[in-house]
Amino acid sequence: MRRLVIVVEYLGKNYQGWQAQQHKNTICDVLTEAMQKVLCHDVMLFVSGRTDLGVNALRQYAHFDTDSTISTMGLCMGVNTKLPPDISVKECYEVPSNFDARFSVEAKTYLYKIYISPTPSPMRHFTHAQLYFPLDIDKMKQASQYIIGEHDFKAFMARGGHAKTTVRTVYDIDIKQVDDEVHFEVTGNGFLYNMVRIIVGTLVKVGQGKIPPQQVKEMIEQKRRALGGKTMEPQGLYLKSVKYQQKFLQYLQPVKKDKKG
Amino acid sequence: MRRLVIVVEYLGKNYQGWQAQQHKNTICDVLTEAMQKVLCHDVMLFVSGRTDLGVNALRQYAHFDTDSTISTMGLCMGVNTKLPPDISVKECYEVPSNFDARFSVEAKTYLYKIYISPTPSPMRHFTHAQLYFPLDIDKMKQASQYIIGEHDFKAFMARGGHAKTTVRTVYDIDIKQVDDEVHFEVTGNGFLYNMVRIIVGTLVKVGQGKIPPQQVKEMIEQKRRALGGKTMEPQGLYLKSVKYQQKFLQYLQPVKKDKKG
Repeated sequence: MRRLVIVVEYLGKNYQGWQAQQHKNTICDVLTEAMQKVLCHDVMLFVSGRTDLGVNALRQYAHFDTDSTISTMGLCMGVNTKLPPDISVKECYEVPSNFDARFSVEAKTYLYKIYISPTPSPMRHFTHAQLYFPLDIDKMKQASQYIIGEHDFKAFMARGGHAKTTVRTVYDIDIKQVDDEVHFEVTGNGFLYNMVRIIVGTLVKVGQGKIPPQQVKEMIEQKRRALGGKTMEPQGLYLKSVKYQQKFLQYLQPVKKDKKG
Repeated sequence: MRRLVIVVEYLGKNYQGWQAQQHKNTICDVLTEAMQKVLCHDVMLFVSGRTDLGVNALRQYAHFDTDSTISTMGLCMGVNTKLPPDISVKECYEVPSNFDARFSVEAKTYLYKIYISPTPSPMRHFTHAQLYFPLDIDKMKQASQYIIGEHDFKAFMARGGHAKTTVRTVYDIDIKQVDDEVHFEVTGNGFLYNMVRIIVGTLVKVGQGKIPPQQVKEMIEQKRRALGGKTMEPQGLYLKSVKYQQKFLQYLQPVKKDKKG
């Protein structure tokens, strides 16, 4: 039995998320079906973490077991011929049997993209959120310092989330202006239901001058969701990367070929 | 009577182009209908130049005449409420009656985006072309020098094009690697049918090492389409900007407001 891990990119807008309560038009379902066609046996995918309805991924990871002797490149190529254009298997690696796409995670990075324009931008309609007015980047950076670290993030969890503990560690928040866009990168050891979208919505409210940066500190301490901003729309959110435990890193990278000249 | 010009962004994938022979699901039709709803009179749009089936625009220009007293911002906002998300009126300006969106053009810049990856990228499926292997940027730059200048570009016109003369001037070609993408920007005084897509397809063939840069010179001199590369797919092409005659520039920019310090 071999354990393989796939790296998947998807545009979330046409799906109910990675996995829905009622299995129906989910990324996991479409992907599983495509893989079963190629592997000719039942496939059970274990994902690094579910993404919600409409959320995108640049590098989502999922593992599965197989007796097939297919090459990792052959699997990518084969499965992609069975997938719609909004889902793609980018890479595939063989990993030890103690690797787990969910439990071997050390950190995840989410990216959120907003463009600033008084009029809609068709090229970015399905991949970005839109705001009409510029944001104060410095104020948002100041507010982000209160979020970084280990905290009880109860105030940053949407209703419907059920986590054993609401304590999480946010390692870093990077905020930058890129032409007429603002990009937020949030790295942490794990995230509660809608947590990144509430973090960004709260930082946006600070950047709009509607609440002072210090209020984010109070929001965390008092565990009061109402002190923050709105939950941002899903289409601007991307699971950007997943960092696995050190001992597995050697398995999770392309085999280096000698480059000519 | 006032003459107004609109700046339009659109994602071309759902349309037959700006204007098709048989009026049917074109950007011009959808836009005209939305504008008529807002202005309550017939609108005739004159465009800087038609874009083909599936081609995108970041800043397409079109002028029209109206007796309406609507503000330029009011027109943008109003029309956008009547448009689908893949078409947007970004800006609107009042111009003198001798301005013509087509005949007052001095230069146009087209952008072509390719991503390089052995597997498909869902986030870029509708907005980029895909190539499997890296391109030699230096060789393509060398080849592009033969294209820059005034030439008879007969070899760069697709069948179905009907132009009085096939002589055009290409002012500049900028080619750059941006992460895993290659971007081509082609600026000229006008372009023949499919000319930019054939220029990029030919440069790609050079960048793949399939033809030497010098062959592009022969292609132009001998007017032989067969010496070049394929016509690239439409979804990677964007009308990026249109430069108008100097005397009109003052009308085509947002009114500057004093910024608060």
